[in-house]
Amino acid sequence: MAEKGKLIVISGPSGAGKSTVVNRAIQGRTDMCFSTSVTTRSPRPGEVDGKDYFFIDQEHFQQMVERGELLEHASYVAHSYGTPRAFVEKQMDDGYNVILDIEVQGARQVKEKMPEAVLIFILPPSMEELRRRLESRGTDSGDVIEARLLRAKEELKEASIYDYIIVNDKIDDAAADFAAILKAEHCRFAHRKHLLETF
Amino acid sequence: MAEKGKLIVISGPSGAGKSTVVNRAIQGRTDMCFSTSVTTRSPRPGEVDGKDYFFIDQEHFQQMVERGELLEHASYVAHSYGTPRAFVEKQMDDGYNVILDIEVQGARQVKEKMPEAVLIFILPPSMEELRRRLESRGTDSGDVIEARLLRAKEELKEASIYDYIIVNDKIDDAAADFAAILKAEHCRFAHRKHLLETF
Repeated sequence: MAEKGKLIVISGPSGAGKSTVVNRAIQGRTDMCFSTSVTTRSPRPGEVDGKDYFFIDQEHFQQMVERGELLEHASYVAHSYGTPRAFVEKQMDDGYNVILDIEVQGARQVKEKMPEAVLIFILPPSMEELRRRLESRGTDSGDVIEARLLRAKEELKEASIYDYIIVNDKIDDAAADFAAILKAEHCRFAHRKHLLETF
Repeated sequence: MAEKGKLIVISGPSGAGKSTVVNRAIQGRTDMCFSTSVTTRSPRPGEVDGKDYFFIDQEHFQQMVERGELLEHASYVAHSYGTPRAFVEKQMDDGYNVILDIEVQGARQVKEKMPEAVLIFILPPSMEELRRRLESRGTDSGDVIEARLLRAKEELKEASIYDYIIVNDKIDDAAADFAAILKAEHCRFAHRKHLLETF
């Protein structure tokens, strides 16, 4: 039987390089997967139900919220998104470490509902470097960049709920930190105490 | 300035392979050191004060206990041993991860006095394997081996104070776990929160 996986929540300012760090860290690993969210929006062309999202209607979504079946959820102007607890737990039971890339508010909800989740905050080396990265992308206007930097400062204030901080200065170091955290979390007393019972 | 080091407390039954794991894990690293104990016993030929031990008299030892200057201490028939807090903290401030190889009772004292210490319990893969290792050493009589196995069972009952369990089945895996724990602990929020202040 595979060892039970962990739920890894990743947050961090836009431009900190979350996806790059995670993708580098999980390269070549077969014990990792991403969480699949439920959403009330319609599938876009090419999107597959159960792979990209679980597409559900508003009534079903509301039921899931009321029954506590979502680890976290958020509603935007027209649509709602959430993380289905049963799906995540099934993946963990199958031995997968499940990655959930969400914002601070969602991370807080997850921590309340699943305290054993591992919360990692990805930090850029400095605000100057964050600005440089956002500018060099060339996709955002000056106003949008200023808004992102302001938002980053707000997010940093909330970072104290996280278990770990990874500074994404050099991508290889950050990916190594991520892998080490994962390995260490599998050595946690709470994760391994069942071994003591066999003695 | 070097990043502050961590205090790593290692315990585990005799025969679990603590020293082997630690020595493999610190090979080639310049950021690790072992703690130096104070003791009231006399130096043996070749032992150097301040290197093997800090040799002090009983009165000085008692003073250190009363002033809370020892992270843990134990007295045996004729002599006393302890871990000097100031020495450990100096090493940590200089950027060293300090390794302290002690028994469960001592680990409990350290955790009370320095909650940020990282406690690792090294476990053999099974009691059968522990017995096999103790027998294959060829240094202990059957009675001593039985006593060690009984003692191991007692120690396991106390393991819940530890932060991590490393199973020493294959030495390379166990050393990798040790290194990962160390790296992860350096990413802990409490260890890195000062970085947020610079943003």
